[in-house]
Amino acid sequence: MAAAYEELETRFRRHSVLRDAMAVLRWDSAVMMPTGGAGARGDQLAELALVRHGILADAGLAELLDAAEGDAGELDGWQRANLAEMRRCWRHASAVPADLIRTLGEARFTCEVVWRTARADDDFAAVRPHLERVVRLTRESAEAKSGALDCTPYDALLDVHDPGSRAAGIEPIFDELSSFLTDFIGEVVESRSGEPPPSPPRGRFPVDAQRRLGERLMRRLGFDFDHGRLDTSHHPFNGGVREDQRLTTRYDERDFTSGLMAVLHETGHALYEKGLPAKWRHQPVGASRGMSMHESQSLIFEMQACRGDAFIRWLAPLVREAFGGEGDEWRADNLARVCRRVRPGPVRVDADEVTYPAHVILRFHLERALIAGDLKVADLPDAWREGMRRGLGVEPRDDRDGCMQDIHWFDGGFGYFPAYALGAIAAAQLFAAARESEADIVPGLERGDFEPLLSWLRTNVHECGSRYAPREILIRATGRSFDVDGFKDHLRARYLG
Amino acid sequence: MAAAYEELETRFRRHSVLRDAMAVLRWDSAVMMPTGGAGARGDQLAELALVRHGILADAGLAELLDAAEGDAGELDGWQRANLAEMRRCWRHASAVPADLIRTLGEARFTCEVVWRTARADDDFAAVRPHLERVVRLTRESAEAKSGALDCTPYDALLDVHDPGSRAAGIEPIFDELSSFLTDFIGEVVESRSGEPPPSPPRGRFPVDAQRRLGERLMRRLGFDFDHGRLDTSHHPFNGGVREDQRLTTRYDERDFTSGLMAVLHETGHALYEKGLPAKWRHQPVGASRGMSMHESQSLIFEMQACRGDAFIRWLAPLVREAFGGEGDEWRADNLARVCRRVRPGPVRVDADEVTYPAHVILRFHLERALIAGDLKVADLPDAWREGMRRGLGVEPRDDRDGCMQDIHWFDGGFGYFPAYALGAIAAAQLFAAARESEADIVPGLERGDFEPLLSWLRTNVHECGSRYAPREILIRATGRSFDVDGFKDHLRARYLG
Repeated sequence: MAAAYEELETRFRRHSVLRDAMAVLRWDSAVMMPTGGAGARGDQLAELALVRHGILADAGLAELLDAAEGDAGELDGWQRANLAEMRRCWRHASAVPADLIRTLGEARFTCEVVWRTARADDDFAAVRPHLERVVRLTRESAEAKSGALDCTPYDALLDVHDPGSRAAGIEPIFDELSSFLTDFIGEVVESRSGEPPPSPPRGRFPVDAQRRLGERLMRRLGFDFDHGRLDTSHHPFNGGVREDQRLTTRYDERDFTSGLMAVLHETGHALYEKGLPAKWRHQPVGASRGMSMHESQSLIFEMQACRGDAFIRWLAPLVREAFGGEGDEWRADNLARVCRRVRPGPVRVDADEVTYPAHVILRFHLERALIAGDLKVADLPDAWREGMRRGLGVEPRDDRDGCMQDIHWFDGGFGYFPAYALGAIAAAQLFAAARESEADIVPGLERGDFEPLLSWLRTNVHECGSRYAPREILIRATGRSFDVDGFKDHLRARYLG
Repeated sequence: MAAAYEELETRFRRHSVLRDAMAVLRWDSAVMMPTGGAGARGDQLAELALVRHGILADAGLAELLDAAEGDAGELDGWQRANLAEMRRCWRHASAVPADLIRTLGEARFTCEVVWRTARADDDFAAVRPHLERVVRLTRESAEAKSGALDCTPYDALLDVHDPGSRAAGIEPIFDELSSFLTDFIGEVVESRSGEPPPSPPRGRFPVDAQRRLGERLMRRLGFDFDHGRLDTSHHPFNGGVREDQRLTTRYDERDFTSGLMAVLHETGHALYEKGLPAKWRHQPVGASRGMSMHESQSLIFEMQACRGDAFIRWLAPLVREAFGGEGDEWRADNLARVCRRVRPGPVRVDADEVTYPAHVILRFHLERALIAGDLKVADLPDAWREGMRRGLGVEPRDDRDGCMQDIHWFDGGFGYFPAYALGAIAAAQLFAAARESEADIVPGLERGDFEPLLSWLRTNVHECGSRYAPREILIRATGRSFDVDGFKDHLRARYLG
């Protein structure tokens, strides 16, 4: 094997191991850290980010990449794909000077801290100058990258989370979805207007019982508690590292469904990480293939599999057992209806499967305009209200549940939101293909057996790592290009069927 | 200020921030991590250790040190002390090649993992080759440092934990203490032979109630829960970082005293960290002044203050309230006698204040011989049994509670043990001086008020950081050199008084 390539593997391994360290520290920040530890933790993460940046931006690395590409004939397919991913990482890292990384990191950290209070106080003016600074520095960073990646600044931000993703490709998909949903939401609401609303089980559902049920389901899905934990945080997430996955959820003692669905969602993420090619652990080609693909893996579990009739029929007795539930509202058909309510509302994280994409599409348009400079931060609250009215027919009471509801932008996370909707679309396409190719998937869900589904996902998605472009993985797995048809079919079948 | 010195501050700040990151990861390993995460965590810690080593071993750093020392006339006293500490850190780091650091790190990690099982199985033979490797590589590292520090290899290991500490200085102190204790333990046992033994409160003491009491006392001592947590681990320790201190204890539901005393002990460590000079945070001169000094701060709380009559009189009603205790065994005088039992036994962490130093002295002699090559690892179990017989008159049933009882050596921690006993001696000397200089300290303890004691410690120890040598801090604080007299006086007064 070429010596230059081998040295690159060594360096990228260090880069990955340090990301793992950061992942554990981030989990701790959200789950364990007392408030007074935030400043010190910010310093630690900023320092680690700089060390990682230094590994990639090092002049020697560029030479090694050139040399390895010159000898690429000696490499096999995986190695060549790995080398291409290395080059991609390098482009992202080397385009941005270390000073800007440091300044942006500090600005994000400060803005996020201010946002926590400003949001609680519904005081957009308090966080506005901080968000302006984050937008300005993010744009600066994105502009620096856009040259290296030959794309627009906003595209450069998309590319961080979803390799190869471009706004021009997302726009027609979102436009199509948007116009479909406008009618569809109306149809669903209309078609259900004669029915009595589902009646969610009432009572107090103790956190302990919810957690035990969640852990039981995680095991059933294939989660290994020797290699991970389930904890509580303000927003559910899947953190930690592949060998030590830290899942979180949150519990509402009056409603067990949201915490439970979050557990199923995060377990989907965890199973993807676990299924990535072990041989390529710590190499770019062994990493998950971007956030849309990641989101598709969580949504296949949460939305496609676990909100379907087959699984809920199996789940209902477990839920009754966990909470000592009795009566009609605990029947599988009612639980299914509870899990499939459709209600346009102002808050993304409370949204149902049908209205959710509209939340994302609004954010896509707004963040694209913010980065392009076509929308001022000062005008964001109004633009948000206007967008919500148009897209969902609802208006938030305040900025708290309006443009301040999500942490993402205040923490500098631009270009991430589209992955949520693209992942939902990909999940529908993948699940349809999986069911078609593997007859035992739905019967499996009916007996609480996820192995047929998981096995198909491992072979067709997880084990690919980052060997192919995201869209190519989809074509290989489903035999067709990425499109909205599968998602539309899924919504029609589930909500108008 | 000299530019070279300023650049050194920047680099040492990075070095310190990365140590903080490691401290959080280590806390997580002991408190949160599932077993399957150990390998990945080992990789993360090893990588961070290498990055930190790289900062110090960098050729440019040596040049900066030379330049700053040339311009030292421009620096003030704190800066000069900081520069001297930087040089000391550099000597330790630059003496050892990165390869050896990596190899030793891996050997320690593997040996520690094997030890966990070998200890449970009482199978010294299983861990022996791993310990041999750790001893060999530790010796190699110590030999490399001994040249740079102009001392013996074992002294170089001592110096890591206690700057300036040398075996030739420890030996006479330990010899004196050893011969004192041999008689003293006998006298105490003899003098108490007529009395009925103390009767520890019996019952089940729920973990929750123990934890609430522990947290209440921590607050009382001055611990701030916005800047720290209390959790559970196999061995109690004080981890995390200054702004986010992670204390642990362990709970025995049949005996609340050991968990409680561990809480008081670790809080003493935490208060030291908190009291270090904020202005010098992340600089070597702002760090705690070695492990003996650290241990003295924990023992001043646990042993000197909290096992004394004044505090226990205040504590007794709180303990009764916490556990609903009633009857004679809950009276302050009985609780004091329970906390001051003297019973030679085989296990260090279960040892009382009087017999504890004998455990340390044995380890000092054995580890010194191991590093010098005068004792073979294969002969360690026998040497241990022999040493225990001579020093404490007891013999462990097996190697599990013999030479395999402590994690230290198996994790490569040589040169650390002496600090436990030296810290106890320093604690007695400091506490005596504090009481003499500040009349309200003991009355304070009687009303559960630690401020008079803490205030004295802040001024005389904490705020010194690493401005002076450890022994010099002691002289400044107490007006006399480090000696065993204060410790002997303390033991006589408490156990024969």
